[in-house]
Amino acid sequence: MVFTPKDEISTRIDRLRPLMEKASLEGAFFHYKIDYYYLSGTMQDGFLFVPLEGPPVLFVRRELARARRESPLDEVIPLSAVEEIRPYTRGMRRIGLQLDVMPYTMVMKYRDLLPGTEFVNGSPLTKELRKKKSPFEIKMMERAAAIAKQVYAMIPGVLREGMSEIELGGLMEAFAKPLGHEGLLRMRSLNYEPYTWHILSGRTGSIVSQSDSPMGGLGLSPAFPVGASRKKMRSGEPILVDFGISYHGYHMDLTRMYAIGHMPARFVEAYEVCKEIEKRVLQRAVEEAKASDLFDYSKQLADDAGFGEYYLGYGRHKVHFLGHGIGVELSELPYIAPRHDYPLEEGMTFAIEPKMVFPGKGASGIEDTVLMEKKGYRRLSTVDDAITIV
Amino acid sequence: MVFTPKDEISTRIDRLRPLMEKASLEGAFFHYKIDYYYLSGTMQDGFLFVPLEGPPVLFVRRELARARRESPLDEVIPLSAVEEIRPYTRGMRRIGLQLDVMPYTMVMKYRDLLPGTEFVNGSPLTKELRKKKSPFEIKMMERAAAIAKQVYAMIPGVLREGMSEIELGGLMEAFAKPLGHEGLLRMRSLNYEPYTWHILSGRTGSIVSQSDSPMGGLGLSPAFPVGASRKKMRSGEPILVDFGISYHGYHMDLTRMYAIGHMPARFVEAYEVCKEIEKRVLQRAVEEAKASDLFDYSKQLADDAGFGEYYLGYGRHKVHFLGHGIGVELSELPYIAPRHDYPLEEGMTFAIEPKMVFPGKGASGIEDTVLMEKKGYRRLSTVDDAITIV
Repeated sequence: MVFTPKDEISTRIDRLRPLMEKASLEGAFFHYKIDYYYLSGTMQDGFLFVPLEGPPVLFVRRELARARRESPLDEVIPLSAVEEIRPYTRGMRRIGLQLDVMPYTMVMKYRDLLPGTEFVNGSPLTKELRKKKSPFEIKMMERAAAIAKQVYAMIPGVLREGMSEIELGGLMEAFAKPLGHEGLLRMRSLNYEPYTWHILSGRTGSIVSQSDSPMGGLGLSPAFPVGASRKKMRSGEPILVDFGISYHGYHMDLTRMYAIGHMPARFVEAYEVCKEIEKRVLQRAVEEAKASDLFDYSKQLADDAGFGEYYLGYGRHKVHFLGHGIGVELSELPYIAPRHDYPLEEGMTFAIEPKMVFPGKGASGIEDTVLMEKKGYRRLSTVDDAITIV
Repeated sequence: MVFTPKDEISTRIDRLRPLMEKASLEGAFFHYKIDYYYLSGTMQDGFLFVPLEGPPVLFVRRELARARRESPLDEVIPLSAVEEIRPYTRGMRRIGLQLDVMPYTMVMKYRDLLPGTEFVNGSPLTKELRKKKSPFEIKMMERAAAIAKQVYAMIPGVLREGMSEIELGGLMEAFAKPLGHEGLLRMRSLNYEPYTWHILSGRTGSIVSQSDSPMGGLGLSPAFPVGASRKKMRSGEPILVDFGISYHGYHMDLTRMYAIGHMPARFVEAYEVCKEIEKRVLQRAVEEAKASDLFDYSKQLADDAGFGEYYLGYGRHKVHFLGHGIGVELSELPYIAPRHDYPLEEGMTFAIEPKMVFPGKGASGIEDTVLMEKKGYRRLSTVDDAITIV
C-alpha cells in the first residue's frame, strides 16, 4: 500500500491557502471523502478543517489509528461529537463548507452549531486545485494504466462467440482486482454511480441510459440500467470496451474496440475517424487552444469526415463534451466542452473520447487518458489502439 | 428483466398518501433514485412528484423512452428545465423534499424556484413505507438469495491456500454477475460505499475501518480501506465471507465461515454461540419483543456464553446494532439496535448479524437475511450454515 507522502500533502495545503484567501475564507471544512483524502491522505470516517493560518486538523470518528498511519498531517484527532469543532473556528465569520455535496440537513446542523457564521461553498477550491496533477499523482495514474494494460491484454484470451457482455465484464474485474483495481469508481453526484464494466456489443452500443454518455448500454435491470448486460456477443458485431480502473483512488479511463470474426467496415471507418479526431485535437491542445474551441474543432472534423450525424451520440441524445478531467474522481476539471474557455495546461490529465453511435446498430470509438506536458502531451493509457479481432 | 407491476406501484403510492396527509404535505418530490425507483419502477435520470391528489408525475431528463417502458405510471414526461415543475405545485404551501440526501445547493434552487413554499424532509415517508415488503419485493429478494446460494456454493471449489482475499472476491463477483448480481450495493450516505467483496481472513477480520461494522478489513489502499485485501489466506485461519448481492436493486446480505485445513476451536465455538444468538433472538422477535430489547437480549446471551468482550466488536470499536433492515437499500428500517422501540412485524426484512472479533486474531460470526411472517419468521438466505472446511 502506498501512503501519500508528507511533502505532497503539505504542497496541496500550501496551494489551497491562497485560494481560500482569494475567497475571503478564514477556514474551510472538507467533508466529502474524495476531497479530504486529497488533502489528508486518508478516507477514514471524519472530515478535515483547514484554517487560513495554523495547522489543518483532521477530525476522525473511525478509525483513528488507521487515519494516523495513513495521513502525514500532524493534527489527527478523535471526534466524538460535532460540537468539538467549535474552539477551532472561534472568531471566524466566513467558512467554507462543501455545499454542493453536503446534504441540506447536515448543513443546517453546522448553521445551528456556528450561528452568525457565513458559509460559502468550498468545493470550487479543491476542484481548482485538483485540476493539475503532481508527479506523485501521475505516478499513481501510471500504475492504474499498467493495470488497465494487463486487463485489456487478457480480453483476446477469453472473448468468444456467445459469451454475455456481463460475463466478460466479470472476468475482467476478477482479473483486475488482484492487480490492485479497486472495483468502484467515484464521481460527485447525488444519483450517478460510474460503472466499471461498460461493455457494449452491437445494438446495446446504441442504447442510451440515464448516464451523460453517448451510449449507456442495457445494463442488468431497471435498477442497474447502464453498462454490460446479459446480451450474448456475436461475431460481426462491434464490441466497445470502456473499462475504468481505480488504483489508490486514482482513475484510468480508456476505450478500445473488439470484434469476433470481423467488424463491419462502417464501424472500422468510424473508429479510424475517431482516432484521427483524437490525434488532431491533442495536437491543437498543445498550441494552447481553449478547451471549448477544441470541442467545436472536433465536431468540425467529424462533419468533414461525413460522420457528424453519429458523432458523440445520435439525434437528441448527443452529449456535449469530448473529454473530462480525471484523477481522484472519474470526472472533474478540465472539460473539453462548450463554455470551458481555458487552455489545457501542463499537469492536467483528462480522458478524451470521440465516439460514434449508429442507431439500432452499435457504437465505435476510442478513449484515452492523456497528460498535458510542457509543449506536448502523453497518453497515460498505453493499450495498443488497433481494433482487436478474435 | 423484470419491470415493477402497475398494481405494485399503485399500492405504494396509495400507502404513501396517508403519510403525506399526516405530515400535512400537499405534494412531495422524490429526487433520490432509490426512492423514486421504489415509487415509479425506473432509475432513469429524473425525479418524481406526488401531489396529495391527482396522478404522480415522473419528470425525466434521460432517457424518456426507457423510463416510459420501465415505469407503469401514466404521467412520465420529459424535463428540459427545472422551472417546468412550477405549474404542478401551484397553490401548494408545504411540500416534501428529500432534505437528508439532497445537496444544500440543490435545495436552494428549489427555494428560489418556489418562493414562499415550506419544504419538509420527505425521506421519513419512504423510509417508513419501505419498512414492510410486498410479496413482489419478497420474490425479488428470494431471487437475490438464489444467486447468493449459487455463489457461496462455488467457494469450496476455488478457495485454496495462498489465494488472496481479493482474488476470491473477484472470482465470486465474476461468477455472480452472469446470474444477475449487479455488483454495486446501495446505502444513503454522503461518504459510505458498501463493498460487496467483504472477505476477511485471520487478522484482517479484526481490523476496523471507517465502516460502522464490527470488522472492516484491510481493503486495497487508503482510498479503499474496507473489505478484501491482497493478504493471502492461510490454513488454520477463520475466513469470514460477507458477500452482498443485488438483484434488480434488491439486496441480500449474509455471512458464512470458511477455513482451509481446519478452524481453531475458539472461532468454531464463537460461531456456534453466534448461531445460537441468532436463533434465540429470532424466536423472541416472533413474540413481538421490541427491537431495542432484542439487541439487549443478544448482548446478555453473549455475556452468558462468556463472549461478551468480543461480541459485535472489541473494546471501543463495538458497534451498536445487531441487525438492519434490507431491501432497495442495504441498510434501512427496521434496526435491531438501542432506541428502536418497535416490534419486528410481518413483512419486515432484515439482516441479523451476531459476530465476534478477537483482536489481532480474526473474526467469527453469522449473518442471515430474514423475513418476519405471521407468527413466525423465515430465513431468505438459504445457504447451509455449517462451517465449511476445504
